[in-house]
Amino acid sequence: MDDNLIFGRNAVMELLKSGHSVNKILIAEGSRDGSIQKIFSLAKTAGVIVEFVNRDKLDRLTGGHHQGVAALAAAADYSTVEEILEHAASKNESPFLILLDELEDPQNFGAILRTAEAVGVHGVIIPKRRSVRLNATVFKASAGAAEYVKVAQVTNVAQTLKSFRELGLKIVGADLTAQIDFRRADLSGGLVLIIGNEGRGMRRLTRESCDLLIKIPMVGKINSLNASAAGAVLMYEIFSQRQHDG
Amino acid sequence: MDDNLIFGRNAVMELLKSGHSVNKILIAEGSRDGSIQKIFSLAKTAGVIVEFVNRDKLDRLTGGHHQGVAALAAAADYSTVEEILEHAASKNESPFLILLDELEDPQNFGAILRTAEAVGVHGVIIPKRRSVRLNATVFKASAGAAEYVKVAQVTNVAQTLKSFRELGLKIVGADLTAQIDFRRADLSGGLVLIIGNEGRGMRRLTRESCDLLIKIPMVGKINSLNASAAGAVLMYEIFSQRQHDG
Repeated sequence: MDDNLIFGRNAVMELLKSGHSVNKILIAEGSRDGSIQKIFSLAKTAGVIVEFVNRDKLDRLTGGHHQGVAALAAAADYSTVEEILEHAASKNESPFLILLDELEDPQNFGAILRTAEAVGVHGVIIPKRRSVRLNATVFKASAGAAEYVKVAQVTNVAQTLKSFRELGLKIVGADLTAQIDFRRADLSGGLVLIIGNEGRGMRRLTRESCDLLIKIPMVGKINSLNASAAGAVLMYEIFSQRQHDG
Repeated sequence: MDDNLIFGRNAVMELLKSGHSVNKILIAEGSRDGSIQKIFSLAKTAGVIVEFVNRDKLDRLTGGHHQGVAALAAAADYSTVEEILEHAASKNESPFLILLDELEDPQNFGAILRTAEAVGVHGVIIPKRRSVRLNATVFKASAGAAEYVKVAQVTNVAQTLKSFRELGLKIVGADLTAQIDFRRADLSGGLVLIIGNEGRGMRRLTRESCDLLIKIPMVGKINSLNASAAGAVLMYEIFSQRQHDG
């Protein structure tokens, strides 16, 4: 199961630290420097089987970017929307959620999870269909953050947004054609930030579900940012406004 | 030359619009929808040879993500540091430069160029050694922005920064261990923003060349952002402060 293969030193170390179930650690024969030894002892402490394998085998399994180590992890644990809301409540914080509307690229998903973790997002919501999912590439691109951020899959995005609005959350969509500069928008309080597909942006029905559409100003010839770059800029603005808030 | 192969519809269209020399356009047989036709007519207008090829050949050449079109472009044009400074002067703006200190990942480089283009950065500087270079992956990841942002290679980063300081530019480094929150730093006026290597950050000598070290606050367990996400957050803060400035 490629989906469960985690590789690279930082990613494997974060996986072991996270307490996520790990089935086995694979270490390339001959790898014995500091971080590999640390991974070995973390694995032993956690009672995880460690197997020394031929470097060629690790190359084949991972595609070559393993840095001498890989882990076979249990399948990704998804949370529920309820668990995400309870998580915010347990921290006594107004919810700060991200919804990815048919995002496709695992590198973007991973980078978004990494930023989301850094700014204290309570959970990330993705549609069950036509969306990137939690997998090994996402995990690695997230530098391990995928272990710490709750991710929920939903069947019906519009319905989910409707229920969020009923809870008093503000639904904010990033849109190239919006009139409001994100730096001038009120982004305090309970909020769902929607980031659309890399090429198409948000779907029409999702856009129509928004209370507020914001844009990131640009002065060049290309009219959009990378989805994870846009996500980072907006998440940090929300993070700042929430800090001033509370 | 893999370095000169550009693929994907947006990337090829931007390449043709940019006026960069293109040796040939390859279109998959049977591709004839709107954006392919637009590419075809742009190529004809520019006097570029168009060749219709078997889809399998395009798959093999590009690795499969070509969306029916590829371009054989002339090698990337690097600028000089002098040209970058003249570009700022010609726009009557104080220089806004980015220096990437041994950045490795072409996806990050492309995403950084895309954001840099959006906020009006005058040029991006990379070291000649141990750095990612302009290539097809960078071009595609930049969504074509690599055509519009000047990129210069320098032999000695510390020496280059010294000459920038003598010109009155502020040298600002992003550093995990910095004390100053980027939102509280004075980032107005002529400035060079340094983004370090994905794993190691800035080199010691580069860090010591900085007038100001800033950090991006984080409240999670992972202590760093993706380089292009961090770059986007910092570039937008600088962009905002420059707008208030002028």
